[in-house]
Amino acid sequence: MFKAKVIVKRRAAILDPQGKAAEQGAKLLGFNNISGTRINKIIEFAVNLADKELAEKEVKEYCEKLLSNPNIEDFEYTLEEAK
Amino acid sequence: MFKAKVIVKRRAAILDPQGKAAEQGAKLLGFNNISGTRINKIIEFAVNLADKELAEKEVKEYCEKLLSNPNIEDFEYTLEEAK
Repeated sequence: MFKAKVIVKRRAAILDPQGKAAEQGAKLLGFNNISGTRINKIIEFAVNLADKELAEKEVKEYCEKLLSNPNIEDFEYTLEEAK
Repeated sequence: MFKAKVIVKRRAAILDPQGKAAEQGAKLLGFNNISGTRINKIIEFAVNLADKELAEKEVKEYCEKLLSNPNIEDFEYTLEEAK
């Protein structure tokens, strides 16, 4: 079994409305030193396979088909053996 | 100036509907080895302060008041000096 950790990020050129909203709130609350807020996703799950190559294949496909939007996002992942 | 990286996670006992949805999609697509998907937030921003203590105070307050919901989420952050 493996534990997978995936980070899905919008590309820098793509607007991040959630980050913008948080930052607008920050300004209203008087935090004036905060800028460039980007909110992205960190995803964790277990992969119930013994073979690392097969596990990686499944993680990659899961990222490409469900966890990210390939038009506007990039992903990176790490796989760690777990008992 | 500092670069802040914050991870905001729902507590384990709190349902994660977004993660459940991704996993349901995974099952439909035939990924049968994936379980326990949790989708959380990773947030990056700049803090335009020279003093680390002040920067930390601002990051903490930003997390508590805007980036997380203290009833169901926990956060952790790292601060890194940047030029």
